[in-house]
Amino acid sequence: MSYRDDPDLRKAGLVVIGNEILTGRTQDTNTMWIGEHLGQNGVILNEVRVVPDDQDMIVEAVNDLRARYDIVFTTGGIGPTHDDITAESVAKAFDLPYGENEEAYAALLEYYGEADLTPARLKMAKMPAGSELIPNPVSGAPGFRIENVHVMAGVPRIMQAMLDHVISALAPGKPLLSNTIACGLPESEIAAELSVLQNSYEEVEIGSYPHFRSGVLGLSIVLRSVDRQALIHATREVVACVRKLGDEPKALSLQADDGRIDGS
Amino acid sequence: MSYRDDPDLRKAGLVVIGNEILTGRTQDTNTMWIGEHLGQNGVILNEVRVVPDDQDMIVEAVNDLRARYDIVFTTGGIGPTHDDITAESVAKAFDLPYGENEEAYAALLEYYGEADLTPARLKMAKMPAGSELIPNPVSGAPGFRIENVHVMAGVPRIMQAMLDHVISALAPGKPLLSNTIACGLPESEIAAELSVLQNSYEEVEIGSYPHFRSGVLGLSIVLRSVDRQALIHATREVVACVRKLGDEPKALSLQADDGRIDGS
Repeated sequence: MSYRDDPDLRKAGLVVIGNEILTGRTQDTNTMWIGEHLGQNGVILNEVRVVPDDQDMIVEAVNDLRARYDIVFTTGGIGPTHDDITAESVAKAFDLPYGENEEAYAALLEYYGEADLTPARLKMAKMPAGSELIPNPVSGAPGFRIENVHVMAGVPRIMQAMLDHVISALAPGKPLLSNTIACGLPESEIAAELSVLQNSYEEVEIGSYPHFRSGVLGLSIVLRSVDRQALIHATREVVACVRKLGDEPKALSLQADDGRIDGS
Repeated sequence: MSYRDDPDLRKAGLVVIGNEILTGRTQDTNTMWIGEHLGQNGVILNEVRVVPDDQDMIVEAVNDLRARYDIVFTTGGIGPTHDDITAESVAKAFDLPYGENEEAYAALLEYYGEADLTPARLKMAKMPAGSELIPNPVSGAPGFRIENVHVMAGVPRIMQAMLDHVISALAPGKPLLSNTIACGLPESEIAAELSVLQNSYEEVEIGSYPHFRSGVLGLSIVLRSVDRQALIHATREVVACVRKLGDEPKALSLQADDGRIDGS
């Protein structure tokens, strides 16, 4: 059983909202950040949907994922301009009234002052009725939570601060640990052995990732688990396997280590 | 009407397959590359799903998107190891037999030679019955097309070569053009004007993207369209609008320009 099927682990979905990601204008980095930081806190990111600034598509993605996952995040589309339609779309997904939130209004008033709280900025106080705020220490305008859906900014620095806040309020969970072993073997030469190891260690996810660096094909074998001991044992077996095949493992990056993985 | 609703433009969906993207181990850059290069060739990337190495989830994503879009791409999961389950999953999505493809076998034989064509490597010749190969000039093992679904490698250099091949076989289309204007205005100060402009130029998508650089909040206004003249006119109006609000547009990056956009 993969840790992805463990009923004790919370799973998350993410909706990345924005034409700028789909047109290739902007490199999304939020998925990687969110996946890594959720994993460290015992929440497994299991699915991401990237959708344009289109109400029907946002509504569909939010409703699909909130029915399926313990926790859902959205990034992007909560600013003051015409293309920021996330809050209104999420209200529609929940079939809730969309309007000014008193606390959000107060937060914006404090951040901007009365003279600068323009109609455009006031839009950022509008959200589904009953939302709980996610503070924005960077630029004032808050995100919000409604049921299991957490609506965050798209600008990475702001998103990261909001995610910290959400994670700090989560019940603790077993962190997802990963061990990486790099080697120079062609993937196909170790494929059969990795398959056998994967079958012996069902609770450890073993991934094999070839890459080009300076024109040379290399291989990273990544083992992930929430079970520290199983991860250590499986890693030790992979190291032994690489040696058996005539290569020397290098660049070990180990989050779970008992000091004896390299067998030396 | 946004260009996204233009029935003459082909739309694409993308399924990014791999636990390494969802755990934050690997930064996906294929989405950005594919979105940009499809747009240049008149195909609009409209939705991306990132799913783990899980057959049911791959099948669901491929079937959802192939019913919805003219063209579908997948990236990742076509190597020789146990976690490479894309080809078998796509066969299942189409309810087609999964087995060795003669042409793929021949391609692998030529690349590796008989002595090195191991059982692990032979796995890379297996695909849905009736697939057409997508050549891999980088590392031998081909991708494939079945109906409107194009299955490509996850390693960016290989994916890019495969995408070039797919794009070269597409009927030409009107390229999606974009013009970018950077300025120092706060987003909220130009929000009302941008909304009016968006309503006047329905065929141009106007996006507003704040960013931090060296701790300073800046704004990029991006206009996109397949209609070159409309894009030029709308861009000229945005430039005039920035000036009217007391700022000087900078860092103009224009794919559609008649030499008179900056009005000077």
